[in-house]
Amino acid sequence: MRVLLVGAGGVGTAVTRIAARRAFFEAMVVADYDLARAEAAVAALGADGARFRAERVDAGDETAVAALLERHACDVLLNATDPRFVMPLFRAARTASATYVDMAMSLSRPHPERPYEECGVKLGDAQFEDAVEWEKAGLLALVGMGVEPGLSDVFARYAADELFDEIEEIGVRDGANLTVDGYDFAPSFSIWTTIEECLNPPVVYESDRGWFTTAPFSEPEVFDFPEGIGPVECVNVEHEEVLLMPRWIGARRVTFKYGLGDEFIEVLKTLHKLGLDRTEPVAVRDARVSPRDVVAACLPDPATLGERMHGKTCAGTWVKGVKDGAPREVYLYHVVDNQWSMAEYGSQAVVWQTAVNPVVALELLATGAWKGAGVLGPEAFPAGPFLDLLTAYGSPWGLREQ
Amino acid sequence: MRVLLVGAGGVGTAVTRIAARRAFFEAMVVADYDLARAEAAVAALGADGARFRAERVDAGDETAVAALLERHACDVLLNATDPRFVMPLFRAARTASATYVDMAMSLSRPHPERPYEECGVKLGDAQFEDAVEWEKAGLLALVGMGVEPGLSDVFARYAADELFDEIEEIGVRDGANLTVDGYDFAPSFSIWTTIEECLNPPVVYESDRGWFTTAPFSEPEVFDFPEGIGPVECVNVEHEEVLLMPRWIGARRVTFKYGLGDEFIEVLKTLHKLGLDRTEPVAVRDARVSPRDVVAACLPDPATLGERMHGKTCAGTWVKGVKDGAPREVYLYHVVDNQWSMAEYGSQAVVWQTAVNPVVALELLATGAWKGAGVLGPEAFPAGPFLDLLTAYGSPWGLREQ
Repeated sequence: MRVLLVGAGGVGTAVTRIAARRAFFEAMVVADYDLARAEAAVAALGADGARFRAERVDAGDETAVAALLERHACDVLLNATDPRFVMPLFRAARTASATYVDMAMSLSRPHPERPYEECGVKLGDAQFEDAVEWEKAGLLALVGMGVEPGLSDVFARYAADELFDEIEEIGVRDGANLTVDGYDFAPSFSIWTTIEECLNPPVVYESDRGWFTTAPFSEPEVFDFPEGIGPVECVNVEHEEVLLMPRWIGARRVTFKYGLGDEFIEVLKTLHKLGLDRTEPVAVRDARVSPRDVVAACLPDPATLGERMHGKTCAGTWVKGVKDGAPREVYLYHVVDNQWSMAEYGSQAVVWQTAVNPVVALELLATGAWKGAGVLGPEAFPAGPFLDLLTAYGSPWGLREQ
Repeated sequence: MRVLLVGAGGVGTAVTRIAARRAFFEAMVVADYDLARAEAAVAALGADGARFRAERVDAGDETAVAALLERHACDVLLNATDPRFVMPLFRAARTASATYVDMAMSLSRPHPERPYEECGVKLGDAQFEDAVEWEKAGLLALVGMGVEPGLSDVFARYAADELFDEIEEIGVRDGANLTVDGYDFAPSFSIWTTIEECLNPPVVYESDRGWFTTAPFSEPEVFDFPEGIGPVECVNVEHEEVLLMPRWIGARRVTFKYGLGDEFIEVLKTLHKLGLDRTEPVAVRDARVSPRDVVAACLPDPATLGERMHGKTCAGTWVKGVKDGAPREVYLYHVVDNQWSMAEYGSQAVVWQTAVNPVVALELLATGAWKGAGVLGPEAFPAGPFLDLLTAYGSPWGLREQ
């Protein structure tokens, strides 16, 4: 397997560090808009970096990306950029007949008249529109293969296959107790993506209604996270799992709730109130800039915060249903302690947790344990091999009966 | 008198509309970085615009401003730009031997080690440094001559001369009950200036301590504003009056409190937490922009909100002291109803209230009722003629015994 990794930010850099320890691939080309960032990621691997090389590429330039795939004879494109670049990278992989893997899906657009009741363009719609074409070509796009979406979907597949006869609700629940020394406010994940997720109308699935939306931050609930994280207030957020799971798994209801906390919710509401969440450029003296890019530029790069960060992050899937005629409720989860990920990989917990899952998936594709054609989510594949390999990577998962 | 008005934003445009009705000056050149804006201000005067003409100028380009003053033989420069341009305009006026009038003073810089206890560079320090030079040249810089600072300082002079034998505290108190239809958040005054005022350490004067600072938003108090506005929560804010009044008026304590309200305070705190209040440029893809400029660009221009605005704004000076051996407490105030200022001038209340005062001052300078040399605040001049002329402009003031 020869991989083109596009994006050498926090997650992309963590991908290189995790992949460098695995033998399943022959070469990994690390490409970024900022060549220095790609070179830094490769240089940091030291003696383990022989299979890696850095390139410069504009992820928005489909032709350039396809040419890069061909030039390096890559058979896989792993997209570690922000979600704006999903479509050009997805199309470039198709053009170059490469397998495509991403960790977030094509962007949504709210319903023009009833944004908080009905879906407009849904997350991933643009990708699923091309599913038949990918399937006909015998090519695979594995979409939403990070931690959430990604591992959370694998958990749902596992629950459906092994733990339940009938599922009432699948609720992805994400929470953390991370703190960052020396900053008043320092998100541990891309603020660009967090704004996109949290300010878009949250999407909910119900089998008798299909997909629908609510107002942002709806249905707050306190979820008790494992391994010492404890209770965190979670709210509905737009997320790929709600769009992916019902395509392959039978459930009466699917939700995603994010443990944002009061302060973060207040910040997001304020950014929205001031129009600073917008992505369309505004004129500022002689320049034109996207306000959301300015917000991101003002905050510290989450990937650089690992040394000042303390605590754990938890991603997981809570499932409620029936097994052998009795009600059952479980939480399948994966916790990363920042201290561990920093010591072991020099990557902070949230980006490391996102990065490990696509590497596991690539290895399953390389060995043939996972195979398929079309535009498929992680829940379209057998969960067992994934969870076993994740554990073999030194990062076990847990199951809590509620 | 020939006036160069620099800045054709909300306040500058209102200045032209107020001045157009008065005969005291011969010509007014309206100059802006954006020529179209200056032209629009002049065009809006219609038949009353014969004495006005539009020019383009960069307020930061001292040489260009001095040349413009000379080219049009202007004897007064009225600065209606944001406070970043105070120093180049102040110096340009001096170069061209013109009288200089502004509505905000040169910017402060917090104390490097003890920002919330000691003053660093104070508001106006850079201007007062040149006071001797102006005085020697027999030239006048009338600084802080808007509504606050400006009319508030005139009120303090009036109180000291007419209402009190001894003053314990002078507290400027500003509050409004303005609302804007159709916007979640729409400040009625320049957000650039509001951020500058509210996030800098507030300055307080005490006769036995001199000037010192506190934490932002300190000493909240509910002040009851007149003419139906009612009680508003006010907090300490950095403002010129605190620096101006003690230079000419004896008082044991001088403060400035602004009726920001909870929501606005929360917004300002969030902007600060995210670094979006910063003025130093940040790199955003290929551009470099000041985050605070981006915040301003995302919000509606306050000058355009008049039609959607309802309510009144109040500026005033509360004074506590002794008269004829008895304790006395008064609030001298000026209220503008947005409905009135829109109907009468097509200008929203807050910018109209700021704009009327420098026009009154120019008229007093033109008639010789006010004269002087050096760098002087409004309280250095007799208050009576100013308050009488303000009333003659159709905008009376009030006095409430507390």
